[in-house]
Amino acid sequence: MDKNNYCIIMAGGPGSRFWPLSTEEHPKQFIDLLGIGETMIQRTFRRCAQICPRENIILVSSDLYGDIIHQQIPGLADYQVLCEPTRRNTAPCIAYAASIIRRRNPNATVFVSPSDHFISGWDDYVEDISNAMDIARNNKWIITLGAQPSNPNTKYGYIQFDEELPMPPIGNLHKVLTFTEKPPVEVARQFICSGEFFWNVGIFIWHIDVLIDAYRQYLPAIAEAFFDLSEQTPKETIDRIYSQCETISVDHGIMEKSDNVYGMRASFGWSDVETWDSLYNTCDHDRSGNAFISGKVFAYDTRDCVVHVPNNKTVVLQGLDGYVVTEQNNTLMICRRDQEERHVKFMSDVELSKIKSKNKH
Amino acid sequence: MDKNNYCIIMAGGPGSRFWPLSTEEHPKQFIDLLGIGETMIQRTFRRCAQICPRENIILVSSDLYGDIIHQQIPGLADYQVLCEPTRRNTAPCIAYAASIIRRRNPNATVFVSPSDHFISGWDDYVEDISNAMDIARNNKWIITLGAQPSNPNTKYGYIQFDEELPMPPIGNLHKVLTFTEKPPVEVARQFICSGEFFWNVGIFIWHIDVLIDAYRQYLPAIAEAFFDLSEQTPKETIDRIYSQCETISVDHGIMEKSDNVYGMRASFGWSDVETWDSLYNTCDHDRSGNAFISGKVFAYDTRDCVVHVPNNKTVVLQGLDGYVVTEQNNTLMICRRDQEERHVKFMSDVELSKIKSKNKH
Repeated sequence: MDKNNYCIIMAGGPGSRFWPLSTEEHPKQFIDLLGIGETMIQRTFRRCAQICPRENIILVSSDLYGDIIHQQIPGLADYQVLCEPTRRNTAPCIAYAASIIRRRNPNATVFVSPSDHFISGWDDYVEDISNAMDIARNNKWIITLGAQPSNPNTKYGYIQFDEELPMPPIGNLHKVLTFTEKPPVEVARQFICSGEFFWNVGIFIWHIDVLIDAYRQYLPAIAEAFFDLSEQTPKETIDRIYSQCETISVDHGIMEKSDNVYGMRASFGWSDVETWDSLYNTCDHDRSGNAFISGKVFAYDTRDCVVHVPNNKTVVLQGLDGYVVTEQNNTLMICRRDQEERHVKFMSDVELSKIKSKNKH
Repeated sequence: MDKNNYCIIMAGGPGSRFWPLSTEEHPKQFIDLLGIGETMIQRTFRRCAQICPRENIILVSSDLYGDIIHQQIPGLADYQVLCEPTRRNTAPCIAYAASIIRRRNPNATVFVSPSDHFISGWDDYVEDISNAMDIARNNKWIITLGAQPSNPNTKYGYIQFDEELPMPPIGNLHKVLTFTEKPPVEVARQFICSGEFFWNVGIFIWHIDVLIDAYRQYLPAIAEAFFDLSEQTPKETIDRIYSQCETISVDHGIMEKSDNVYGMRASFGWSDVETWDSLYNTCDHDRSGNAFISGKVFAYDTRDCVVHVPNNKTVVLQGLDGYVVTEQNNTLMICRRDQEERHVKFMSDVELSKIKSKNKH
């Protein structure tokens, strides 16, 4: 394992799509979504630690989640957990971590990863990323990974690879032509038919110098604000910088503009598990199509359901077809899997009612 | 309130029909089935205390439930909670309590009541029972109550009243002709059409002398074994008597044989709430036909459901029609209301699995 390999894990998202499992206080990355005794961020950290030395992994999150991270990943040094005072999307987040990394090792190769995605085929994953890091170490390229799309998902981002003229001629990299966020379904269908489009898995690999240069060129204000930060910078300074900083994603701020982004086809399986339906599809099913992720489930005449409850809970289901059954924080939700876009409404109704009831007392 | 009024509350049943709410360790009478902050036995005790002085109420239960009774009804004296070592149905249970009552007051009038039935119209109830006690005080009759049947229920017992010739000519009492337990549905339909049949609400009112005489005549072995018991009788003696005692109901052992049983039409509403469906029918419904008995429920596209969960639990339901949703002891059950006869199977599957898992460790 190369001691110049560094990793930035982005762990500040407030994802409450899996409410009541996930909440703003305890979002998706801190949940054992797969029911395997390991939270998404623990799993991501363990995976990244197969590529970078443990002490080279920096987690960037929110002030809200610093304690949870130290709790879930014991033994991290202070410099490994950076807490943002406000959410400013991914560009500032990566800049903050990059500034710390550059001071620790000006020859770092940096691998940026989300904290809450599902990866199958860990060996392939480690091999892909390690290969990409080896290439990025000696080239001025930004390398990203594209997963083979299996359906016209309208919630993902798509990357277009230049298939005609693979460039540069190493590592099976292709020039990246376009980035498209969440296309309409017809567009997504055309993307898939063309064979040129891949799901953007949110992973970027670049040498620290390439990263710094890209920020200086495309996001100079962020570069200027962030690249002087060190482990000793007082919190007041961080707060001030964030309060004045633009909210922008690294995709939009750099990747879409830069002309030296190269794509690699991921050989591992990937899902961002953003919805109950994608979680259902990610998990193993029994013969009746049920994904009983956690809890001790006894099912009768029950099909195509997904169950995620505390592991010590017994659940008896009878006569349910296509439902989500989940519980967390003493809140039980039973609803149709195909109605999951309404979860946000359910959540806000419940939370509003709690606030009203608090105000009454 | 007459100080000779006594009450025997029978509270030894093991009812687990409402599993997972009710279990053999914590059966129906000890549950707040109606979600009103009061268990069935607390409610029964409070109702009976409107008819008999509190200290004249004797609860007969099982060794298993003595502690729960003292917990749920604080301040009871030892003589008020009789614990049977084994279940022998209602005839021995009433004989045991009657023996204690006779020693305390040889002029007692005794009202025998189940502990886990639903009564609506408490004023009517108090008036009916008080009237019956006034009559029983001065007559050698056994008085029972019959509720107007609203449907051909096949799980209830039926009492046939002699409508032609009301006898005796006081208190609107009718001679009771027959007792029928759980008739087939065609028979139950005929019973209802005839107008002569009433639901047996399991309440009997008799002077202590009438009770003793009836046992001596129809159940002499039980009379001999039990009527020497006192508050001082050692537990070993009780255990021995129960081990040798016949298992028989007071209905079968006395009521069906005696020719001085008289029936009174109950003016209160009654249900033995023996099934989820009868609980559903007993409770108030919202406009969508839901009976949300306990818990904080948020329902969307949900009809004809019954929810009974711990009160501090939030439940979000979407797209459910005709389901039971219930939780107790960390066991959640979601199943169709019309499939409730299968609950016993669900319960045994879960309990068996717990035993197996214990044996493994």
